Amino acid sequence: MADKPSKSHGRLAVRPTLKPTELMTERPDLAGAWKVKIVTLFPETFPGVLGSSLTGKALQDGLWQLETIELRGFGIGKHKDVDAKPAGGGAGLVLKPDVVGPAMEQARRGTPVNPKAWPVIYMSPRGKPFTQEMAQNFAKAEGMTVLCGRFEGVDERVLEEYNIQEVSIGDFVLTGGEIAAQAMIDATVRLLPNVLGNADSTVEESFSNGLLEHPQYTKPTEWKGRKIPEVLQSGHHGKVDAWRREQSEKITKERRPDLWAAHLDKED
Amino acid sequence: MADKPSKSHGRLAVRPTLKPTELMTERPDLAGAWKVKIVTLFPETFPGVLGSSLTGKALQDGLWQLETIELRGFGIGKHKDVDAKPAGGGAGLVLKPDVVGPAMEQARRGTPVNPKAWPVIYMSPRGKPFTQEMAQNFAKAEGMTVLCGRFEGVDERVLEEYNIQEVSIGDFVLTGGEIAAQAMIDATVRLLPNVLGNADSTVEESFSNGLLEHPQYTKPTEWKGRKIPEVLQSGHHGKVDAWRREQSEKITKERRPDLWAAHLDKED
Repeated sequence: MADKPSKSHGRLAVRPTLKPTELMTERPDLAGAWKVKIVTLFPETFPGVLGSSLTGKALQDGLWQLETIELRGFGIGKHKDVDAKPAGGGAGLVLKPDVVGPAMEQARRGTPVNPKAWPVIYMSPRGKPFTQEMAQNFAKAEGMTVLCGRFEGVDERVLEEYNIQEVSIGDFVLTGGEIAAQAMIDATVRLLPNVLGNADSTVEESFSNGLLEHPQYTKPTEWKGRKIPEVLQSGHHGKVDAWRREQSEKITKERRPDLWAAHLDKED
Repeated sequence: MADKPSKSHGRLAVRPTLKPTELMTERPDLAGAWKVKIVTLFPETFPGVLGSSLTGKALQDGLWQLETIELRGFGIGKHKDVDAKPAGGGAGLVLKPDVVGPAMEQARRGTPVNPKAWPVIYMSPRGKPFTQEMAQNFAKAEGMTVLCGRFEGVDERVLEEYNIQEVSIGDFVLTGGEIAAQAMIDATVRLLPNVLGNADSTVEESFSNGLLEHPQYTKPTEWKGRKIPEVLQSGHHGKVDAWRREQSEKITKERRPDLWAAHLDKED
């Protein structure tokens, strides 16, 4: 990788500690590890849920790394203003281009320019819906930069100037981009090599074949008068696979005719 | 509200402190405040991002409340097992019905049975896609219970037994339901009375009229050679509104033909 990110703090290597927040900054880059840079007004919300469970262990193990860039530090004037009223009037506040711009420029230092190698994303309900396929592509990149908005969003000129892709995690409005960023990063990080214990589990799950996942059952065999379907206890792998496939198709057809149609198109 | 939740700890009222984690438990219910109960293996991930910014302030102010119910406490045997291998074979582990069931029963205590008054949700990529309309409905409820899965998911019989609605925040797979739950709760809590400073800002935003939001601009008037569109500086409210509407429609048509079609259907 020719575009090795610069060491922003110039410190020598330190041993990873067990405290996730300490792993985020003031540490030289781990060579080759997938990296995410987050531009946010609330750096203290990271790693958040990403610091627990599998993603947290992977962060501690250096399988990925996280750096936050605090927008407030780029604020203007005595009060470090980051936002102002929308041009043309209306409710709320808009993040200023002369605040977000310099933060994006700092994030850009040492990263590849090619958006496939290093996507630059703004979390926004106006964006392209985030999908498992996008997560797979992001996991193949060297890392990514994520801008988290707040208030009424960010000045449109920033998105144009830095060619930022808008990505949405769904048709709903959040108070800020931080939770959306965590969702996107979680879905991506778990696809990185060695993060999940069992690589198989990313193959069988929902969306990996364009279908929703079949129902799952486990012990006990009978619970509250409800039994595990007999076929799952037959020990006949072919029949189990056929049943699961049939269930996946049935559930997808019933619940998500849009996915089912897309699945049929792909099979053609 | 006839179904006032029971006081699980039997303690007298204490003053809210400024530490969000302390606000979640061991505190009598705030009469009438919207409440969410989270069933999770990782209670330490809450309130997470929800403890910051507007949602955090609203939590401190008692405008909503959060209780976590730790699944591990319902684990079975010496090792407090919560999961086991999928019936029929395959990768990963499935949350056991005899562990999740009792946790759901604890969550159910003192809550209304009517799912409109108290939705019971399982975060799952197989679920109904979460939308702004669902957030609006959840905000009108007295509260809700959210089950966060991990691993390969939860035994299907639990979903049937407790009539749990599956809700998805998007077509991607997360390591667990916690981030998805935070997204859903954030979108809901910001619609509760008095949470947002300016009520107007929920009216103009994306999805509130079935369209994506128009671009936003703010000072400075010129930045990096890019100017704010003239109409926004005209001071002519009618023209500003017309331009914004036109931009909303254009962006929705271009980016989300699905939303545009749904919008046209509604207008008919």
